Amino acid sequence: MKVTLPALDTCESSFTPLVVLELAQDVKKETKEWLKNRIVSKKEDGGAQLLFRPLLNKYEKETLENENLYLVGASKITLLLGAEAMGLVKECNDNTMRAFTYGTRHNFKDYDDDNDDFLTMAECQFIIKHELENLRARDEKMIPGYPQAKLYPGKSLLRRLLTSGIVIQVFPLHDNEALKKLEDSWYTRFTLKYQPLDCIRGYFGETIALYFGFLEYFTVALIPMAVIGLPYYLFVWEDYDKYVIFASFNLIWSTVILEVWKRGCANMTYRWGTLVMKRQFEEPRPGFHGVLGINPITSREEPLYPSYKRQLRIYLVSLPFVCLCLYFSLYVMMIYFDMEAWALSLHENSGSEWTSVLLYVPSIIYAIVIEIMNRLYRYAAEFLTSWENHRLESAYQNHLILKVLVSLATLLITSQILNQIMESLLPYWLQKKHHVRVRRKVQALKADIDATLYEQVVLEKEMGTYLGTFDDYLELFLQFGYVSLFSCVYPLAAAFAVLNNFTEVNSDALKMCRVLKRPFAEPSANIGVWQLAFETMSVISVVTNCALIGMSPQVNALFPESKLDLILIVVAVEHALLALKFILAFAIPDKPRHIQMKLARLEFESLEALKHQQMKLMAQNLKEESQESSKKEA
Amino acid sequence: MKVTLPALDTCESSFTPLVVLELAQDVKKETKEWLKNRIVSKKEDGGAQLLFRPLLNKYEKETLENENLYLVGASKITLLLGAEAMGLVKECNDNTMRAFTYGTRHNFKDYDDDNDDFLTMAECQFIIKHELENLRARDEKMIPGYPQAKLYPGKSLLRRLLTSGIVIQVFPLHDNEALKKLEDSWYTRFTLKYQPLDCIRGYFGETIALYFGFLEYFTVALIPMAVIGLPYYLFVWEDYDKYVIFASFNLIWSTVILEVWKRGCANMTYRWGTLVMKRQFEEPRPGFHGVLGINPITSREEPLYPSYKRQLRIYLVSLPFVCLCLYFSLYVMMIYFDMEAWALSLHENSGSEWTSVLLYVPSIIYAIVIEIMNRLYRYAAEFLTSWENHRLESAYQNHLILKVLVSLATLLITSQILNQIMESLLPYWLQKKHHVRVRRKVQALKADIDATLYEQVVLEKEMGTYLGTFDDYLELFLQFGYVSLFSCVYPLAAAFAVLNNFTEVNSDALKMCRVLKRPFAEPSANIGVWQLAFETMSVISVVTNCALIGMSPQVNALFPESKLDLILIVVAVEHALLALKFILAFAIPDKPRHIQMKLARLEFESLEALKHQQMKLMAQNLKEESQESSKKEA
Repeated sequence: MKVTLPALDTCESSFTPLVVLELAQDVKKETKEWLKNRIVSKKEDGGAQLLFRPLLNKYEKETLENENLYLVGASKITLLLGAEAMGLVKECNDNTMRAFTYGTRHNFKDYDDDNDDFLTMAECQFIIKHELENLRARDEKMIPGYPQAKLYPGKSLLRRLLTSGIVIQVFPLHDNEALKKLEDSWYTRFTLKYQPLDCIRGYFGETIALYFGFLEYFTVALIPMAVIGLPYYLFVWEDYDKYVIFASFNLIWSTVILEVWKRGCANMTYRWGTLVMKRQFEEPRPGFHGVLGINPITSREEPLYPSYKRQLRIYLVSLPFVCLCLYFSLYVMMIYFDMEAWALSLHENSGSEWTSVLLYVPSIIYAIVIEIMNRLYRYAAEFLTSWENHRLESAYQNHLILKVLVSLATLLITSQILNQIMESLLPYWLQKKHHVRVRRKVQALKADIDATLYEQVVLEKEMGTYLGTFDDYLELFLQFGYVSLFSCVYPLAAAFAVLNNFTEVNSDALKMCRVLKRPFAEPSANIGVWQLAFETMSVISVVTNCALIGMSPQVNALFPESKLDLILIVVAVEHALLALKFILAFAIPDKPRHIQMKLARLEFESLEALKHQQMKLMAQNLKEESQESSKKEA
Repeated sequence: MKVTLPALDTCESSFTPLVVLELAQDVKKETKEWLKNRIVSKKEDGGAQLLFRPLLNKYEKETLENENLYLVGASKITLLLGAEAMGLVKECNDNTMRAFTYGTRHNFKDYDDDNDDFLTMAECQFIIKHELENLRARDEKMIPGYPQAKLYPGKSLLRRLLTSGIVIQVFPLHDNEALKKLEDSWYTRFTLKYQPLDCIRGYFGETIALYFGFLEYFTVALIPMAVIGLPYYLFVWEDYDKYVIFASFNLIWSTVILEVWKRGCANMTYRWGTLVMKRQFEEPRPGFHGVLGINPITSREEPLYPSYKRQLRIYLVSLPFVCLCLYFSLYVMMIYFDMEAWALSLHENSGSEWTSVLLYVPSIIYAIVIEIMNRLYRYAAEFLTSWENHRLESAYQNHLILKVLVSLATLLITSQILNQIMESLLPYWLQKKHHVRVRRKVQALKADIDATLYEQVVLEKEMGTYLGTFDDYLELFLQFGYVSLFSCVYPLAAAFAVLNNFTEVNSDALKMCRVLKRPFAEPSANIGVWQLAFETMSVISVVTNCALIGMSPQVNALFPESKLDLILIVVAVEHALLALKFILAFAIPDKPRHIQMKLARLEFESLEALKHQQMKLMAQNLKEESQESSKKEA
């Protein structure tokens, strides 16, 4: 059943550019030749078997301006075999989700030999990225023409090319037609409707679709909290029972929405195939390094790195470092409070205009210091996590997010409004200006179809790069913090969060579609460590809410003589709420029943198939043995 | 590769009796004939294909005394096919654990066509039990000769026979030789050594071996707590720091030992094959009922029962009932306190001898009432859990244990010493008396080898039945409660628990080997819901310990003026400890890394096998299609 590629791989006429590769301006010819050779040569010869073309302008010529830009595409069969190698999961004709294999391609829904719609463009680009990243050094000791760029067997070529500055960037192209369609159904018309998550997933991949799905779900789920919060704000109740009810509702609601999200998420990712996809069996992320060896699980040759070493790095270096940083940031905060107290006392003693300006100085200094510290910490966290050498991209992300989240205590204080302006409007404005400049440049060429591609590549290569969903999730996380941690003090928090998120959806969508380079799709089955972060926050919120209610004057007035009783009652209520929370989280299954059944069915079928396979192997061995013995006898 | 049984199933000469089936004295001949027919007839005809013999005395005759006793055995091939059907997991020659299949039997370690050692006796007996329980009604409307014992298609025959009193009991026979060996290595010699868990597992099955493994592990793990507790008891410290250190150590230690047990347990059950065994794919437990249909996961015909109905029964009936019982037991406790206060005041007012006797009356009444209530509650819990209609034995057990555990609050008060006497020494004494009686009866026959079997069966059928590990685990659970809940008040608890458990191992072993009927083996991969129960207890213990330390006079003396500060500090420490506990539980992986790797390897291989299977199917279909079309053309 082995498919011989070269025989099928002839129809190069239909070259669709999918990914752009930008080299540095001064790359030597020999390097270019070698790179091209490695990219287009066959898998058997250690190549990626992709299509590789220089970007040509209208006159089909390379000019000085575009001689460092290359287009990468792939034949249909390369893409399908790539999908098989990466374990992409697709729906079959019998409505089950199964790992795609080239041999069984006709079993899959919507597959047609004459049609290219089976894989989404995002999937094709992800496959090409994967093929490029897994081009690994064989016997080369260095990159031809660059003796200082050392290679060793198994090292990812693309990674070395990027770190030595030979390749500037690799990015997927937008598909203007599909993008237009997506925009129309997504955010251009201001009507209240659900986002087209399946379309977003088709265009941007699962990770980004999951973010938008979570943003929408979270916003809708906050509405009841916002509605209940309103009367608490409008009519200031003196009755503490109602406060307790409000806080209890918020706590239970926040537990329930997080649990229900898990179920909805499983539903969605089952449909998308990523829930069933076994990413741990994939090849390691390109940043992963180690001694070449045989993976004991998949029996494939790949770099290996002992897990105890990673554990040592995490627990002996990263963890103490994070604790130290946390201590340091608390120390800085203390200094800030001291400074503010000092400024206040100075102002009170000599209330001149000059000292009233001085009142703002500590806050400004603190904000600047925090911002600098945050940036430094982010770099350090990235360095440490990369040094920990995680095999899977998801493990890398989770460890990075965990590290950065602990510096949150300080972030919670600095406002998020500034962030939002910085992240979306400013780059859009800059982009617009740049856009006009490029258009003016290109207009001389009088765009026809080929020139449009040229224009598009030149335009997109200057766009900003999307740095992942971290900041977007962080924003939602901070929001959740305001809503849940201080729900009874600030009952309007949920309402503001809902209002903010309605515009956030649109600004994020605009950012993704028009402002930034198209990101590579990244399959994912859930929102990863963010689920844990949100759940931890909702546990902490039980403590803060109970403490706040206990400290409120209304409640204190009810226990005029005995503070002791008050505290004991508050602690008892808090423990009861915590217990209720854990029981709720335990009682709500993480996956809906029909998904559980389908996963069990898949597991059962695989185990049965394994049994049959071994039985066949066994029978074959016996046959061969008997044949050999009969030969000997003869 | 289908094996035709009858061809291989001729060597009945080597009949090994494994299981005894006792009928009622007055069972009609026609029923006996029908039952025998169903048990021995072939699988294709809906039988169990087992061997079935009446028990004969020395003169090879049936007498009135033994005409209702039957021996059940099985040919080797029936046992091997049964092991395959149940998904027993065994070690292969390449040291991996794989589900046993008859076709690949030569791949497995220690397998030999001429040797019967491959399956342990416990496994053989479990297979026979499984075959008997899965004898299901086909077109019979009732049990022949008993019109009142109704049957419907799919109903387990054995279950109906037991409930209508036609079959009195089914039990596996002891193997005196193996038992002697087991005893010698287990408990007869009083030396300090680890228990032979693998031998126990071979003789009694995984569930019981896991109990003894847990008992041993738990005892050894308590030793540090006992050692640290001793000085606290001997030198009464006035220093509250040391109390806090002791309590903190206990809390962290109890978390760590529970997590480490999970890892050790996974190690053990991987070696035994039950960790890999997929019990959810098995046929349902015989007590499960429902409409005959196709299981969507395994595609086998079996009774189906919608899960939402089960959920409704659990949440609308069982849960309210349990809450009501809990409320009622608390109410009874309050009455007891009132009675005691009343008796005390009566005694103080008129201190006669008569009233000093009266002081004990409330306790006695309370103990009796609690005992009665407990028994009633146990019955109710069993009835409700059985009515909830769980598909898997493990689910049934877990729900039953959960229900019974909530009545624990009352049990914790009544002592466990009485229990221990009741459970082990009393039946042993009764048994000894009975033993003598039977021996006297049998001596007349002058035992030779055949008479020994006869003697053995007659003796064992009168032995008590082992009712499962529930009471044994409950005892350990209560112990853990004393040690962890009140560690700082009663620092000797751990030491006493250790001492008690050293004798407990021996008394339990004696009970299993000599006092009770041999139980059927039951494969299990972990200690089930008990793990959750122990973990919950250790969380609760954080609260009680902090409260006890906070209330101790030494600590109170440190905060002479402000109780408020004291409580706030205690609550803060408690929260920190709880957080530490959860982080610890989260950071320690539940399975050791090498087990994780092996499980991942198995999953990977199964998924690959599934892909190959589908590819083969696909190729076959294409071939057939092309053949058909060429035929048509011709």
